[in-house]
Amino acid sequence: MELEMENKTEVYLDHAATTWCSGRVQNVVKKMMDTDFGNPSSMHSKGFEAERHIRRAAETIAKTLKVSDKEILFTSGGTESNNLALIGAATANRRLGSRLVTTQVEHASVLRTMEYLQEQGFEVVYLPVDRDGIVDLDALREAVDAKTILVSVMHVNNEVGAIQPVAHAADIVHEKNPQALFHVDAVQSYGKMLLRPKKLGIDLLSASGHKIHAPKGVGFLYKKEKVKINPIIFGGGQQAGLRSGTYNVPGIAGIAEAAAQAYECLDEKVRHMYSLKERLIEKTSCIEGVAANGKCGAESAPHIVSLSFPGVRSEVLLHALEEYQIYVSAGSACSSHQSAAHQGASHTLKAMQLERERAESALRFSFCSDTTAEEVDAAADRLQELVPRLRRYTRR
Amino acid sequence: MELEMENKTEVYLDHAATTWCSGRVQNVVKKMMDTDFGNPSSMHSKGFEAERHIRRAAETIAKTLKVSDKEILFTSGGTESNNLALIGAATANRRLGSRLVTTQVEHASVLRTMEYLQEQGFEVVYLPVDRDGIVDLDALREAVDAKTILVSVMHVNNEVGAIQPVAHAADIVHEKNPQALFHVDAVQSYGKMLLRPKKLGIDLLSASGHKIHAPKGVGFLYKKEKVKINPIIFGGGQQAGLRSGTYNVPGIAGIAEAAAQAYECLDEKVRHMYSLKERLIEKTSCIEGVAANGKCGAESAPHIVSLSFPGVRSEVLLHALEEYQIYVSAGSACSSHQSAAHQGASHTLKAMQLERERAESALRFSFCSDTTAEEVDAAADRLQELVPRLRRYTRR
Repeated sequence: MELEMENKTEVYLDHAATTWCSGRVQNVVKKMMDTDFGNPSSMHSKGFEAERHIRRAAETIAKTLKVSDKEILFTSGGTESNNLALIGAATANRRLGSRLVTTQVEHASVLRTMEYLQEQGFEVVYLPVDRDGIVDLDALREAVDAKTILVSVMHVNNEVGAIQPVAHAADIVHEKNPQALFHVDAVQSYGKMLLRPKKLGIDLLSASGHKIHAPKGVGFLYKKEKVKINPIIFGGGQQAGLRSGTYNVPGIAGIAEAAAQAYECLDEKVRHMYSLKERLIEKTSCIEGVAANGKCGAESAPHIVSLSFPGVRSEVLLHALEEYQIYVSAGSACSSHQSAAHQGASHTLKAMQLERERAESALRFSFCSDTTAEEVDAAADRLQELVPRLRRYTRR
Repeated sequence: MELEMENKTEVYLDHAATTWCSGRVQNVVKKMMDTDFGNPSSMHSKGFEAERHIRRAAETIAKTLKVSDKEILFTSGGTESNNLALIGAATANRRLGSRLVTTQVEHASVLRTMEYLQEQGFEVVYLPVDRDGIVDLDALREAVDAKTILVSVMHVNNEVGAIQPVAHAADIVHEKNPQALFHVDAVQSYGKMLLRPKKLGIDLLSASGHKIHAPKGVGFLYKKEKVKINPIIFGGGQQAGLRSGTYNVPGIAGIAEAAAQAYECLDEKVRHMYSLKERLIEKTSCIEGVAANGKCGAESAPHIVSLSFPGVRSEVLLHALEEYQIYVSAGSACSSHQSAAHQGASHTLKAMQLERERAESALRFSFCSDTTAEEVDAAADRLQELVPRLRRYTRR
């Protein structure tokens, strides 16, 4: 009884970190673990049946992006997708040049991979962002030269929800150097907004399953047909040799089901999440000193809100909320928390040049389309109560 | 009704390719997709709870190997484990030398990775095997020199079930060069036999989930504590920076459950599988010209039988059996069947110097501990009927 109560009052507002698998996805995964368990590489019908699931999954995902199913590569998640895109494209196109361009606010799986490529002799330019976390397009124009082989810009920032002008960025990249490839880390936007890589001028696009109610351990990389990349994992030659290893059939069928589900009635879901965003900002606006980080409204992602409560450190407020079973993030959850704890304030908020106190008091609230107004209200109410109280403790 | 009948008569003898998830594993995976869905990197209790599952999984697996849980790294499968072991160890220890040693009968995820390392300037020695598929230890002794940094020898061959003398090989490696690392691809042996890396002198050991009734998309690498490797996937710094990316909690909890289950009553299961092996060989011995490839009995793995039926091509017999819902492999299923179809006979059987006709007529039958004598009999009966009939067609 008590347990049930607990479950009922849980307010999970950390969907940008991860989310549960939907019931539909769970059913699909179960089927692939049980009856349809074949290895797509097997030569008999158990294998062909499994292979059919893979092909269908690629078709389903391709349809959401309006691309060809042959342009979808399955990976173990967003991190591997980003690694494959960056290392794969950089090493395959080395003869064209050695410059790589990205932004200061990318996810660690882009930033750390860029550092690795730097060690391998590539030159990496990190573009600055403005106070809203939006990349400086003039700096991009300046950075892309004849030796540039790859530009990587995330679509939605995982910490503040800033939407980068990827279409505009793609135009600049291709105009300045038609041979340079344009990669977009869409881990936080895929399933939350319409994405048309062909129309946007995107050559490579990364996405992850567990942000859209699919299981952890699966993701995909869209690779435009003629774009050349090298594999980073070698073996049995699956996926045209670009990603060897037995297909993760349950995960792949799961991410396809989740993708299909995410894009059903998308407009309605997006409207709902924007209304939650507005609601949270409005209901917390009475808290003294509160500040929203990055743009709000339609210029930002519908599901991510970053709020600072100067005078209370993020972790303190996070744990205070946690006592009421309200789960949010301090910065990003995508780095291991052990290392994050030692890093101090987030690199994104630093790049946005927010004052230290503001950066160190930022919390991220993130929704899914199932999040309710009641959950948002519960969080807002607790914040109204906790923030002044915690500030008193701090000041003593 | 018909469907039910079909399911009942299905004889799946391709467990070395992949296998279904056990009921216990399915329950664990479901829980992680549903209630315990947190991101282990999150700073709140939802994250800590998920992290606890990861730690417990590492402990469970470590116990089966009698190693420390800190020595277990989770990956997306056997292929990634092999890639991480080889690329990770080779690049991290480059200053000690540039020679890598392996065998001619390794899995593609070792052979193709070695080719990649060759392109990166490493020298690779491929050791020959005898007619039973057993590596030549004199050749090993000769190959390991002062410049050798890594030796990789599989434990159980995936095509013929040959057990390599890994303990003996480890002794030779460490005696000839104490700095050289010894890696074992144990994808086909983990869960089927007792493995004690510390006792055997193994520095790195790869295993896969979906061969032991865990889901596809998860595996692990045992890395002896002081062994230095570089990551091959970069990002949030999970797993001490050696394998970034959100933990695949359902898969990891699943592989741990499967590992625990595999090692329950192991002796009994192994005895059962050896009896099936003997039974299949005996019941097919009346087929003219049949030949078992590799050793049989206790000198070979309990769950893999390779039989050649000269005069009938592997694929033809495989598809004929398939019509009766008997599922087996031609060679190995670990390479994508598209590329396998173009490769002709398997590299393992070639390395064993089997006659071409024998190599091209080999089928692999592989069991799990749930496989029954009735299933083996059904396969043997069909073979007795099909082989002579297909030979008549061929000869016409």
